[in-house]
Amino acid sequence: MGMADWVIWNGVLLTLKRDAPPICPGFVAVEGTRITAVGQAGSQAELPPARDYLDAAGGLILPGLVNTHCHLPMVWFRGLADDLPLNRWLHEKIFPAESGWLDEEKVYWGTLLAAAELIRGGVTTVADGYFFEDAVRRALKDSGLRGVTAQGVVDLPAPGVPEPRDNLKLAGRFLESGPDYGPLLTSAIFCHSPYTCGPETLKGAKKLCREAGVPFFLHLAETAQEVQELRQQTQMSSAAYLDRLGLLDELTVVVHGVWLEPEDLDLLARRWVKVSHCPESNLKLAAGVAPVPELLAQGVVVGLGTDGAASNNNLDLFGEMSLAARLHKVTKKDPTVLPAKTVLELATREGARVLGLEGQTGVLAVGKAADLIVVDINQAHLTPMFDPYSHLVYAARSSDVRHVMVAGRWLMRDRTLLTLDWRAMAARARLWSEELSTFLRNPPSLDPGRAIRENEPEPV
Amino acid sequence: MGMADWVIWNGVLLTLKRDAPPICPGFVAVEGTRITAVGQAGSQAELPPARDYLDAAGGLILPGLVNTHCHLPMVWFRGLADDLPLNRWLHEKIFPAESGWLDEEKVYWGTLLAAAELIRGGVTTVADGYFFEDAVRRALKDSGLRGVTAQGVVDLPAPGVPEPRDNLKLAGRFLESGPDYGPLLTSAIFCHSPYTCGPETLKGAKKLCREAGVPFFLHLAETAQEVQELRQQTQMSSAAYLDRLGLLDELTVVVHGVWLEPEDLDLLARRWVKVSHCPESNLKLAAGVAPVPELLAQGVVVGLGTDGAASNNNLDLFGEMSLAARLHKVTKKDPTVLPAKTVLELATREGARVLGLEGQTGVLAVGKAADLIVVDINQAHLTPMFDPYSHLVYAARSSDVRHVMVAGRWLMRDRTLLTLDWRAMAARARLWSEELSTFLRNPPSLDPGRAIRENEPEPV
Repeated sequence: MGMADWVIWNGVLLTLKRDAPPICPGFVAVEGTRITAVGQAGSQAELPPARDYLDAAGGLILPGLVNTHCHLPMVWFRGLADDLPLNRWLHEKIFPAESGWLDEEKVYWGTLLAAAELIRGGVTTVADGYFFEDAVRRALKDSGLRGVTAQGVVDLPAPGVPEPRDNLKLAGRFLESGPDYGPLLTSAIFCHSPYTCGPETLKGAKKLCREAGVPFFLHLAETAQEVQELRQQTQMSSAAYLDRLGLLDELTVVVHGVWLEPEDLDLLARRWVKVSHCPESNLKLAAGVAPVPELLAQGVVVGLGTDGAASNNNLDLFGEMSLAARLHKVTKKDPTVLPAKTVLELATREGARVLGLEGQTGVLAVGKAADLIVVDINQAHLTPMFDPYSHLVYAARSSDVRHVMVAGRWLMRDRTLLTLDWRAMAARARLWSEELSTFLRNPPSLDPGRAIRENEPEPV
Repeated sequence: MGMADWVIWNGVLLTLKRDAPPICPGFVAVEGTRITAVGQAGSQAELPPARDYLDAAGGLILPGLVNTHCHLPMVWFRGLADDLPLNRWLHEKIFPAESGWLDEEKVYWGTLLAAAELIRGGVTTVADGYFFEDAVRRALKDSGLRGVTAQGVVDLPAPGVPEPRDNLKLAGRFLESGPDYGPLLTSAIFCHSPYTCGPETLKGAKKLCREAGVPFFLHLAETAQEVQELRQQTQMSSAAYLDRLGLLDELTVVVHGVWLEPEDLDLLARRWVKVSHCPESNLKLAAGVAPVPELLAQGVVVGLGTDGAASNNNLDLFGEMSLAARLHKVTKKDPTVLPAKTVLELATREGARVLGLEGQTGVLAVGKAADLIVVDINQAHLTPMFDPYSHLVYAARSSDVRHVMVAGRWLMRDRTLLTLDWRAMAARARLWSEELSTFLRNPPSLDPGRAIRENEPEPV
């Protein structure tokens, strides 16, 4: 081991390695993009030599969180319409905005805005599925986040893909150019769903993913209605249908899976399929509650996702952790279901497995990428602390994340973003949210600041 | 109207008055403890004259939140034990800690710690029910919060009440001394539950409350088991049993009400009984989901509560709002149930009605107390903003609260607490959490800072 670039020390270190106890006080040494040492040190004198030291000040040092499902550019539609029936929400608001207002530049800036929220919430890896995904890749690269960017595929006209028959050709080109975006980004494909993608499209997209060795994402069994309709059309359950098309393997990520049937669980487990669980979105859209305890009991790898800000309305994995830990207790009538440590594992190590990134991220261990966060516990709502896992899941908030590092590079220090220009984003957001309101003939957005916000608070 | 002491201006003003639209840009004028004007002003020149001005910088100005149920001093047990069956949690952890470790001084300091969390989370009014409630009153008075402090009553030995036969005598004295604690605090009684308080205790406590004209709080129908047992013993539903004892009127607050039966809803509505809904606690303890949409449809007044930090594990009403808005959508399979604005009303105006404080707080209107908060929206996770109600419920976090005023006095400015000494609380918390771990023979709490936290972060 040479001289470390950074040693992060003086915190409660949660490695998230299987069965590893907290190390207290612990440190992590980082050289280049990788972790070179993890250990215990009661004083600065015991630390390995390093060019720089970051004092975690008694906080929690843990792997950065992994958001396994998002539609990042949809931050533009955050709170645009809520509490509506799904059809009105889609047809009166989201589809018109996507088809008539969104463009590549807006996707780029929306992704930057989403990246700012993710970094400030302790996320270091995000999986996205959307359109104009090339712009998503560029923005994520500029943000410094690790990501899996999946080009959307659907058998309907879509943003950037006016001709559905071009969807696979475009997705194939998208995968080919993946390596241009550097080692932090994996390019993949997101087929919207079995009810918007025909069997040939699904098979073609999966074939492209298989050849490239990258994840294939698919919304599946999100609503009871789609499962019923699929059964009427095919006499099959959701997973059985995908299996007949040959889509199920260890690089397939099923998103939502709310209405998976008992035979589906077994099939997903046997095929090593991964599942992304998005509880806040599932509740807000009244979709239902995914059978997560059953999936875990079958050995299926499950991660947490926020879904997009149009249906959540935030990209906050702390909220997903708190809800996942509580929700399944009440549906199973058992307060021991999904204990805090398990839920934190879903948000880190298991999330990395969902995305096929377990070799890179999700635990703090020698040889892994230095993707880590420091959570400040010196706060009223985190006092006292008996159990750091409990605190992270049941009491902490994303705003408690103090420092964020991805692949050895600081993306946030002391809650200040280091790779993104908040003022530039905020200025665009003000302009474009008014434009979008006008476009949709909504009442104007409530921004009192146009005239008198010259004394704007400092960027955050 | 004389000269105002404060004008809070340049924000989106949500008065929470029934059917009142947002005022943008809006202002509130405050003289002494009261609101003297509410209006619209596009520039500082249009504002009423005032000794001081607070620029909300484009944020949301709204009534402070009302937490209708808490056990404040139980912050000492936050995360002490989670994910356990109820009986083990109570008998191995909570009861031993309460009977052998807790004392009046710890209740006082625990309440201060809880008050710090509440203020930093935008709560301006809290209802507490616990033991050593005199110490709770002193601490809340020192914090500057508005509160309803309810002395716990139970037919078992309790902290500060070793002889259960003294419980009503002590509660009566507690009510008598209420006025000594000033106009912001109401002293009341909290009977733990029908399964820990016999009929004579319940009737005696309610009689004391009726004579004093103050709320009577009671955990009711929290678990399916207690409802079954009550029916076996009395052949009655929960509310019917209380009604037979003559306990139901407009100053009775039923807490939880998860397993209220259809006939109960009607009875509660006819008797003007109020309900405190605590969804995060109900889920975490696997209690169930309260029939809130049904209660609201019957016209029952419902507020939100956090319950204590031992079962939540936070005192964050933003979390309760987000969960309440989502949870009932999925249980009712309807995304239009409990829209954001309704949920914000439960957390403010309706919460004030639950506590009988609607004359004082819960809306921003001339003559009401100046209990208000400013929420900073100049942040990535709140950009863009189309609907302030949606933002507060689905996207904002308690950490977005920037300023807090109660009865014309600032309790927090720019996230700095003005009435509480964080360092003194943190020092005690460190000492006492270790003492509690030792007492319970738990592994020592994970505080890495004893030796090396001299460089402690600034108080928050």
